[in-house]
Amino acid sequence: IKFRRRNSNKEELIECDFIAGCDGGASKCCRHSIPKDEIRTIRKSYPYSWLSILVDSRPNGHEVVYSFDKTDGFALQSLRSPIKSRYHLQVSVDDKLEDWPDERIWSQLNKRLTLKDKSWKLNEGAIIHRALFPTRTSMTIPMQYKRLFLVGDAAHIVPPTAAKGLNVAVKDARILAEAIIDVYDNNTFDKLDNYTDKCLIHISEAVEFATYMTSLLHKLDLSNENNEINEFDEILQRARQHQFQHSSALQRHIAQMFVS
Amino acid sequence: IKFRRRNSNKEELIECDFIAGCDGGASKCCRHSIPKDEIRTIRKSYPYSWLSILVDSRPNGHEVVYSFDKTDGFALQSLRSPIKSRYHLQVSVDDKLEDWPDERIWSQLNKRLTLKDKSWKLNEGAIIHRALFPTRTSMTIPMQYKRLFLVGDAAHIVPPTAAKGLNVAVKDARILAEAIIDVYDNNTFDKLDNYTDKCLIHISEAVEFATYMTSLLHKLDLSNENNEINEFDEILQRARQHQFQHSSALQRHIAQMFVS
Repeated sequence: IKFRRRNSNKEELIECDFIAGCDGGASKCCRHSIPKDEIRTIRKSYPYSWLSILVDSRPNGHEVVYSFDKTDGFALQSLRSPIKSRYHLQVSVDDKLEDWPDERIWSQLNKRLTLKDKSWKLNEGAIIHRALFPTRTSMTIPMQYKRLFLVGDAAHIVPPTAAKGLNVAVKDARILAEAIIDVYDNNTFDKLDNYTDKCLIHISEAVEFATYMTSLLHKLDLSNENNEINEFDEILQRARQHQFQHSSALQRHIAQMFVS
Repeated sequence: IKFRRRNSNKEELIECDFIAGCDGGASKCCRHSIPKDEIRTIRKSYPYSWLSILVDSRPNGHEVVYSFDKTDGFALQSLRSPIKSRYHLQVSVDDKLEDWPDERIWSQLNKRLTLKDKSWKLNEGAIIHRALFPTRTSMTIPMQYKRLFLVGDAAHIVPPTAAKGLNVAVKDARILAEAIIDVYDNNTFDKLDNYTDKCLIHISEAVEFATYMTSLLHKLDLSNENNEINEFDEILQRARQHQFQHSSALQRHIAQMFVS
């Protein structure tokens, strides 16, 4: 690999047998080093974005809290530390950060998350970071070009709803590590050649689960354009939410998908 | 109700308190007796049809047999009697009955259903009835207009994949019967006024389950038009088939949905 350190013009060289491409979803290096006709990316976008904030306040409780509000959409409390919380809001895909002053954020978070009987309410605090990003899925295949292997977000993005991004990246890394060890220990490239296919099993499963959780909990269309297909999808969504609440077998399956 | 018997010009009259509209999916009478702006029908069509045949042969085994073939699509053995079987094949939405001579039907049924090791194979026989119909879902709401109540297929169609049509119709009929009994026993129209809302719970659940089974087991696009959304849906389908095979919690949930 030839590279330049930041703020330096000197080109340096590292010789290596393999490259693990771990430069994330906005990969500017690894994925773009592969000729375009050697890989392709399958994409799906959702018609809404997430507004995510980091807050200087204690999370309420020890569990992630999901919420579906049928007029305004999805919200989520996730835990960062005993004194830091992260909150997420479904917003319109056209929204900008300036459309969401603090008061509007808290008003919507309270509306969507706080229980009517106040038995659960969120802890407000100073917003110390905020970001707005589209929800989308992408899978780049194959995840290998010669001796370069894409790992984690450099190869795939799943919607954050099911919190699967890190798990998937770690599984990729483990499969790649085991394959590389096999090269040095047993002088065989079999595992390395199967890297993409082996990863696609857990990636597809995570994408499927993230898609399920996303479509279960987001208001499908914030634009209020009413058409029959959309209404049909809303009927399916309500039926799935009903099953999610009432089927212990489905709850068990979801729990297994969550921790797998 | 004023009506004429078949092959008669004489108009006859029946006086009644309520009408249960049970004239099926091709309802020419009940659904069409309701002014168009008083009801609406939500529809979803799938890009394929079913070819269904009734056969003079013993079904193999005592269970419905589902099959997914990744090149040709869905097939199903359903049971009719100890000496009659029914088979179903996913076919192109443009196909006509004359495109499917007996040899092609048996060739495709064998390809899709018979196991490679021949440990399960179907029993061929004379085809005594055949039909070709589009797979689709529709829900007409409300299911009530004044004293006329729509029941079963007159109000809704679910894809036959999950075999839910009869169950849903019987549940509609039971809810309506209980509501009418309540009118005569207790002189209250409350249950009758809630007829649509009460039915929509089991109808939505059946539609959701039929949609799940349909998208799980059909080749998504027989036309082979390749685009990225389609490929994404195929990846999800494979992941769901994988879960269906390996998650006992999901299998339990599906089994409960089947018999509910």
